[in-house]
Amino acid sequence: MAGTNRTDENRTGGPAIILVEPQLGENIGMVARAMANFGLDDLRLVNPRDGWPNERARASASRADHVIDAVRLYDTVEAAAADVTYLLATTARPRYSLKAVRGPDEAAQEMRVRVSKEQPVGILFGRERFGLSNEEVDLADEIVTFPVNPAFASLNIAQAVLLMSYEWMKSGLEEGAAPRFTAPEIVPAEKDELYRFFAHLEETLDGTSYFFPPEKRDTMVHNLRTMFTRASFSEPEIRMLRGVLRSIDHRLARGGE
Amino acid sequence: MAGTNRTDENRTGGPAIILVEPQLGENIGMVARAMANFGLDDLRLVNPRDGWPNERARASASRADHVIDAVRLYDTVEAAAADVTYLLATTARPRYSLKAVRGPDEAAQEMRVRVSKEQPVGILFGRERFGLSNEEVDLADEIVTFPVNPAFASLNIAQAVLLMSYEWMKSGLEEGAAPRFTAPEIVPAEKDELYRFFAHLEETLDGTSYFFPPEKRDTMVHNLRTMFTRASFSEPEIRMLRGVLRSIDHRLARGGE
Repeated sequence: MAGTNRTDENRTGGPAIILVEPQLGENIGMVARAMANFGLDDLRLVNPRDGWPNERARASASRADHVIDAVRLYDTVEAAAADVTYLLATTARPRYSLKAVRGPDEAAQEMRVRVSKEQPVGILFGRERFGLSNEEVDLADEIVTFPVNPAFASLNIAQAVLLMSYEWMKSGLEEGAAPRFTAPEIVPAEKDELYRFFAHLEETLDGTSYFFPPEKRDTMVHNLRTMFTRASFSEPEIRMLRGVLRSIDHRLARGGE
Repeated sequence: MAGTNRTDENRTGGPAIILVEPQLGENIGMVARAMANFGLDDLRLVNPRDGWPNERARASASRADHVIDAVRLYDTVEAAAADVTYLLATTARPRYSLKAVRGPDEAAQEMRVRVSKEQPVGILFGRERFGLSNEEVDLADEIVTFPVNPAFASLNIAQAVLLMSYEWMKSGLEEGAAPRFTAPEIVPAEKDELYRFFAHLEETLDGTSYFFPPEKRDTMVHNLRTMFTRASFSEPEIRMLRGVLRSIDHRLARGGE
């Protein structure tokens, strides 16, 4: 069902909240409630541990049934973010020095500008135990982190969603004022395009022995993805890169002489 | 024990969080956790339904034991707020038209100013079921209300404390919710590096027959250069791209099988 979000008549058009492998139904329910409090309704789950539907989630949603009923399920983060053009990853610690890091208020304002131009946006939230993997953070454009007390930094998932939803609501109240950030003229490709380019690039490079030695493959993939995500290529640009890869693939298949 | 707050050596000096007749120990624990997340530690309870201490509160505080251990108990709101000079009441709806009503951010800024002058401040939070009574709101100087979705306005007590604590933390930072870590500014490569990458890319692609038909070569080169210039790659990123090209060159030179 990815890719249908923009045309859903009943949605409010706020950011998609994407929970990656949430464990407790109670937390999913509290997330739904927090979203409803601040007018969000696009909740997406990637492999919830206890399956879906989940009655504990509904019970702890405190009648945010419209959010629970509209939940969409995905097998991968890539699929959940496929129609999104600006994707944020929430993290508790500074793992990714090359991505821009925003506070929740700044991130909400940036999302508001993009949504006003009908560019779908989304936010990734990690597992209760250990958050998002490095590979998952790689899939996002930028990082959001919360200004917490360093000595006690563990926000739970429902609290993190609450703060982002609250800042989203606040950013809409300030709409009269000129936005502090302006979206780029060039619209970034939907993530689905970007992720398919990643897969293509990595497959081609597996064929050229770029990933050497093999134990460094993960790091090298990470570095490539970070670089190409940061570039915010548009859909025509991604198509051009795919064309470059195809020409290399064909030449390799024909023999390199 | 009221009236001792200003002289407590170990306290951080933020607002006192005053819960009026809280019902569930779990909620008290989640309040303590939210406070700890944002550096608050002065939690006061007025007649908690299940008495005190409460093991359920400690269990759901997720190791915010320093807040739980320092909880103070009172029989009345008046006693709990005795040493406070500026008291806010949180309400879901503006019942008191004669009191100023503030949003959480404005309220936090006001508290910050007063705390900087060593004036103790506090915030009242009502019961899970029906909030604060009119008489209790009367005891406060001003009202805080949250910018929630009117169609789904029920914030729970821990969420309300979380938002106020978060705004308190933000009010102490110089520029809003500045993150605890920021990406270093990425310096674009010197143009010489970029142009040498262009030359390398175009040479490799001449070998893969990417530029086809030949009369479109100039346009295709222009598009590639525009895309890679816009990306503002850094010198390490350009080096990575050169490595990718070298792996392709080597593979083509060895034959593509």
